[in-house]
Amino acid sequence: MRVYDISVGMTPEMPVWPGDPPVILERTAAIADGANANVSRLSCSVHTGTHVDAPLHFLEGERAVDALSLKVLIGRAYVVDLPEAKVLDAGTLEAAGIPPRTRRVLFKTRNSQNWARGERKFDEGFVGVDASGAQWLVRKGVQLVGVDYLSVAPYKQSRPTHEILLGAGVVVVEGLDLSKVSQGRYMLYCLPLRLEGSDGAPARAILVGV
Amino acid sequence: MRVYDISVGMTPEMPVWPGDPPVILERTAAIADGANANVSRLSCSVHTGTHVDAPLHFLEGERAVDALSLKVLIGRAYVVDLPEAKVLDAGTLEAAGIPPRTRRVLFKTRNSQNWARGERKFDEGFVGVDASGAQWLVRKGVQLVGVDYLSVAPYKQSRPTHEILLGAGVVVVEGLDLSKVSQGRYMLYCLPLRLEGSDGAPARAILVGV
Repeated sequence: MRVYDISVGMTPEMPVWPGDPPVILERTAAIADGANANVSRLSCSVHTGTHVDAPLHFLEGERAVDALSLKVLIGRAYVVDLPEAKVLDAGTLEAAGIPPRTRRVLFKTRNSQNWARGERKFDEGFVGVDASGAQWLVRKGVQLVGVDYLSVAPYKQSRPTHEILLGAGVVVVEGLDLSKVSQGRYMLYCLPLRLEGSDGAPARAILVGV
Repeated sequence: MRVYDISVGMTPEMPVWPGDPPVILERTAAIADGANANVSRLSCSVHTGTHVDAPLHFLEGERAVDALSLKVLIGRAYVVDLPEAKVLDAGTLEAAGIPPRTRRVLFKTRNSQNWARGERKFDEGFVGVDASGAQWLVRKGVQLVGVDYLSVAPYKQSRPTHEILLGAGVVVVEGLDLSKVSQGRYMLYCLPLRLEGSDGAPARAILVGV
């Protein structure tokens, strides 16, 4: 069984979405100071690093992250490698050779290089799925979309893509590091924290070779 | 494929270890207030709810949670149901009928009823593994131990059990809710957040029927 960790390491230095709370990871008790154990506190936006968006992120009154189905978050997935893509629009997706009846698709783009080289600065020029791409995914019956930067939508175009995908019940996984996996079929296990009533949750996601 | 979520829902009302930071889950941006999206912030001890302990939790200079092997966190596991146990000592474990060569064992005790009924108060009388039980597990070659309350060790007896298990490289998973699973064999997928350098991490854990 070959296991690929496609999650981003969480540190106070990692890039976060502009305006979101920073990542804090700090010791609140330390053996060195006489405590019984080392205990740390984490504080972060629920949309930090590798994470899942709930419909509630963009759609008031819709489902929270703890209501997402594990049956969608787990299962066969296809990684498609699009190193030259500047935007994931309908034409790009149509030409990408995604196998018919793919229910979970993860897009590997140049974004993954940001994680591979440990870039700390937020990259406004990241590759995302535009509205036409989102409509294409819904039309094809995709149930889960994974991307390798902090938003599924291109910068400053968040709302249309999110509304189309989340409104259609598509699970959106963001902040994946796909730099070490090749195009092809895998089993995906994407497990977000079970945050009750939350608009999103940080997750650990792995691929298992099939 | 039957999937069992054995993770505890995270809310500000859940019980936390005495003295640990509280769970905060709050909106920092809200569509209702004119923001583009709903965005929440999470703040909690890394030992909140369902979580994994790293050796660093009790052993200064030892491995952090991001260094734990996914090959141990994922794999065949045995759930043993011990509804009458008051302490998981060597005698109790010896008599529990755990199959030979079990590498991952999850203990279902009366603790799980705390989660099932949504108890908010910390239960000092929870069932844990004492030092003799920890030595038994190490001797049998167990690589991962899961328990259904907030510490693997009985209250006020944290250090011996943790030192024995973590010192032997056993992965410790705490805060599981096993109330809905029966004794038997499963596939475990326990995925903690990839918190760099941390003494522990909240996790989502599932069992898949085999």
